[in-house]
Amino acid sequence: MKVIVIGGTGTIGGAVVEQLGQRHEVVVVGARGGQHQVDIEDIAQVRALFAKVGRVDAVVVAAGALHVGPFAELTPEHFHVGLRGKLMGQVNVALVAQEFLNDGGSITLTSGVDTEHPIRGAVAASTANAAVEGFVRAAAIELPRGLRINAVSPTVLQESVHLFGGLFTGFEPIKGSRAALSYASSVDGAQTGRVYRAW
Amino acid sequence: MKVIVIGGTGTIGGAVVEQLGQRHEVVVVGARGGQHQVDIEDIAQVRALFAKVGRVDAVVVAAGALHVGPFAELTPEHFHVGLRGKLMGQVNVALVAQEFLNDGGSITLTSGVDTEHPIRGAVAASTANAAVEGFVRAAAIELPRGLRINAVSPTVLQESVHLFGGLFTGFEPIKGSRAALSYASSVDGAQTGRVYRAW
Ligand SMILES: NC(=O)c1ccc[n+]([C@@H]2O[C@H](COP(=O)([O-])OP(=O)(O)OC[C@H]3O[C@@H](n4cnc5c(N)ncnc54)[C@H](OP(=O)(O)O)[C@@H]3O)[C@@H](O)[C@H]2O)c1
Ligand SMILES: NC(=O)c1ccc[n+]([C@@H]2O[C@H](COP(=O)([O-])OP(=O)(O)OC[C@H]3O[C@@H](n4cnc5c(N)ncnc54)[C@H](OP(=O)(O)O)[C@@H]3O)[C@@H](O)[C@H]2O)c1
Repeated sequence: MKVIVIGGTGTIGGAVVEQLGQRHEVVVVGARGGQHQVDIEDIAQVRALFAKVGRVDAVVVAAGALHVGPFAELTPEHFHVGLRGKLMGQVNVALVAQEFLNDGGSITLTSGVDTEHPIRGAVAASTANAAVEGFVRAAAIELPRGLRINAVSPTVLQESVHLFGGLFTGFEPIKGSRAALSYASSVDGAQTGRVYRAW
Repeated sequence: MKVIVIGGTGTIGGAVVEQLGQRHEVVVVGARGGQHQVDIEDIAQVRALFAKVGRVDAVVVAAGALHVGPFAELTPEHFHVGLRGKLMGQVNVALVAQEFLNDGGSITLTSGVDTEHPIRGAVAASTANAAVEGFVRAAAIELPRGLRINAVSPTVLQESVHLFGGLFTGFEPIKGSRAALSYASSVDGAQTGRVYRAW
């Protein structure tokens, strides 16, 4: 398979590239690094990316900005960070990818554990992540040509836990290589409309 | 209790006003009709509304625009209809309401059955509705002063089924008065962070 991993230069994406690279041809895409660059918040850039890369068998996104902060201080703009980044960034990729995927190909997006296990300070993040999961469940039933779409909902990674302060206290951090297995389940498997819980 | 019902001039909101009006003082708000008018997409108008109405014990929202249409034809702008209307419209109300609610007061928002039962043509709607539910689950754990927040997820109403063509084929339409009971469960009950399924 030819697989494009957007966010492939990041912590999760890097682990996904390593996992999928064992048996697939992987195209690594970043915002600044990688073989190709894209800003997923701009659908025109997503279109230009796929026009360069051409037809693929699987698309993975492990990217998308989120705002973290106390609920009492949230303004609409804090929600827009995640709606533009994590949600519409990934929706943009899915909308464009359907045209460039070979029959039976797959799209795998990323949400987060906070949709099912609310965390203090993560309201705006959970809102965007829940939207990603709702998008995946709904889009799955309308994709043509046997195309599939899933999300992976990772808990915090061992590699990232130091970045989040006490946000994930009480959660068991997992290795990136373990989270990457959920992306492999989606890409190499046959299910659609699922949220793979990586925790 | 003093309860403000935004969308109280609509099909669902009208049934909620009738149900809650049996034992509470209800303030009916619409976009054009009702005792007060507001566009929930504009948080400044939401602030002006609450400044006029003053302190309340419960806030219900049964309003919020959504786009319906085939997945293959969706553009980002179709998603923004529901993100601006159904999602951020209701988030705006929740953000402002927390300051105007008496201790122990409640916020009740509206999602829709399609988040759990995907329907062809409802991808953009499901995305916004799922975000509303994620918002509610997350905000519930951070609200101060015993404030509560829930969502009601209605299936299609008997009063509305003619508006939707074949969209809800296979679903059992329910009376508005029955959907209104879920709003009463949220307003008069004591739970928080819940999605009440009205179907
Ligand atoms: N790490 C965790 O513990 C964890 C847990 C749950 C969920 N997640 C989710 O997983 C996703 C990736 O997280 P991560 O920790 O791996 O992030 P990361 O290490 O910061 O990497 C982010 C990746 O996305 C790329 N990127 C950033 N903005 C982009 C944009 N606008 N368009 C295209 N690519 C963009 C970056 O490219 P460059 O390297 O070129 O800048 C990089 O490849 C995020 O959505 C995050 O919410 C992470
Ligand atoms: N009806 C159903 O079968 C059904 C099923 C599931 C979910 N829902 C959801 O329930 C909500 C209400 O649906 P409905 O069928 O009762 O709608 P409706 O009959 O069209 O009524 C909409 C209500 O919202 C008000 N409104 C519209 N835009 C507004 C805005 N920007 N700001 C403030 N108020 C606004 C309207 O005021 P005016 O009357 O003054 O214009 C009216 O009170 C929607 O979010 C819908 O998705 C409905």
